[in-house]
Amino acid sequence: MDGQYLPMSEAKISVLDWGFLHSDATYDTVHVWNGKFFRLDLHLDRFFGGIERLRMKLPYDREAIASILNNCVALSGHKSAYVEMICTRGSSPTFSRDPRQAENRFIAFAVPFGSVANKEQLERGLHIAISETVRIPPKSVDPSIKNYHWLDLVKGLYDAYDKGAETALIVNTIGHIAEGPGFNVFLVKDGALRTPAFGVLPGITRRTVLDLCTEIGLPVTGGDISRAEIKGADEVFITSTAGGIMPVSRIDEAMIGKGQVGPVTRRLMDLYWQKHDDPAWSTVVVYP
Amino acid sequence: MDGQYLPMSEAKISVLDWGFLHSDATYDTVHVWNGKFFRLDLHLDRFFGGIERLRMKLPYDREAIASILNNCVALSGHKSAYVEMICTRGSSPTFSRDPRQAENRFIAFAVPFGSVANKEQLERGLHIAISETVRIPPKSVDPSIKNYHWLDLVKGLYDAYDKGAETALIVNTIGHIAEGPGFNVFLVKDGALRTPAFGVLPGITRRTVLDLCTEIGLPVTGGDISRAEIKGADEVFITSTAGGIMPVSRIDEAMIGKGQVGPVTRRLMDLYWQKHDDPAWSTVVVYP
Repeated sequence: MDGQYLPMSEAKISVLDWGFLHSDATYDTVHVWNGKFFRLDLHLDRFFGGIERLRMKLPYDREAIASILNNCVALSGHKSAYVEMICTRGSSPTFSRDPRQAENRFIAFAVPFGSVANKEQLERGLHIAISETVRIPPKSVDPSIKNYHWLDLVKGLYDAYDKGAETALIVNTIGHIAEGPGFNVFLVKDGALRTPAFGVLPGITRRTVLDLCTEIGLPVTGGDISRAEIKGADEVFITSTAGGIMPVSRIDEAMIGKGQVGPVTRRLMDLYWQKHDDPAWSTVVVYP
Repeated sequence: MDGQYLPMSEAKISVLDWGFLHSDATYDTVHVWNGKFFRLDLHLDRFFGGIERLRMKLPYDREAIASILNNCVALSGHKSAYVEMICTRGSSPTFSRDPRQAENRFIAFAVPFGSVANKEQLERGLHIAISETVRIPPKSVDPSIKNYHWLDLVKGLYDAYDKGAETALIVNTIGHIAEGPGFNVFLVKDGALRTPAFGVLPGITRRTVLDLCTEIGLPVTGGDISRAEIKGADEVFITSTAGGIMPVSRIDEAMIGKGQVGPVTRRLMDLYWQKHDDPAWSTVVVYP
């Protein structure tokens, strides 16, 4: 923050920063696994795309940010980490309400790697409930700008807890499946994969699944998924930088497939983690 | 913050607070004018309503929060101030992603009173552009929970700047007028007032205009307003705690009425400021 490296307990932002007061910010999160960043280039692409669309400016280029991220991980000592880069609108020295007057701010931090699903859930599959809450539509907020507007997802999460589930899927404006709190979703039916394409975050792990399917010749498409379709799928899994590819074994009252991790999901999970050692998709962290 | 009173420059929150990382927070802003809070009760009602709907809990009751707000103003010494109270989800001591595990946090601060419209704009009326951006709909985020999800409003603001206007109105899901960045809007046509009713923040200044209209016998309704209707109005004004009732003299290419502050707007503005000395609507700040 502000050119300094600090312990996480001292990493604080002004309550007057519009990144807080207006959630006027974009961010990206990349993970480090066994001392290597995974697909850092794609995360930097998305982060710089969001900054441009929000009309923010930073004094750092890609190389400078990659170097700062490396330093955050190296100084923290984490071998597996969740590494976040943030650009906030900042605030104006003159208290102006005009966002063009604000001095944009860059923050980055590394914390221990965390997952949407815990060990038990990764083995038996997550239990998910579908909430009636509608994901904030693209006409309101461009989902390709990765953003902190999460109250719809938090509402979905509480709806899911009320139904005894562990996490949630929320819907798009026409009532089809959109995404969940911090993850995209895929179904497998008769050997083919499908993932929602409209109004969802273009997740890097989602993209990675598309790439892996292409590589091993599995048919995959982006398109609408109804509630009935997802509940009738052979397999369902979610994708997130926080945990990778994670199986789902129950949606509302419906058991998915045989109620355990299916073979396509298992194959993709294995391949996903193998790829973390592929030099084409990883960047070695330089520790001091 | 955390039970301490600090200078604004030291008022900082952890970057790990979900109030920042997920904009998982509600807030309210009340103003102090000439040493008196204006309609503090209504702001506290809305704030506590938002906290309940977000399923947050604070260790303070209304009286305790009113006392903290008084202290923020008194210690700052401001006679006219913009006073914000915030409840964030906080964060979990165990790094859990479950919002039920988080320790909710209360923050309050007082800064000098600011206005959406500056002195010149208050005299000649604001120039506004209508953006195609759609206000985040109620099915995504309940607008009665005052929240920091502003990227739609920020987009509208940049659209307005691009058209040479000073601020923006954005639309609802069916393309009618919704609201602007931090304000509601009213039109006057043939002596009657109208303000959008669907999917907008139930603003306290909006409510105050409704109350004033009732008091002086002006007809006012909540209902849809098309773009053509607002451009063809006799008068248009916006309402916000940050500035009160503020005239609009131009919308896109259209001059509103005679292009100056209209008589109904003027009458309501005068009455609004007079009411700041009415004991029924104000609470005296106790300075040390």
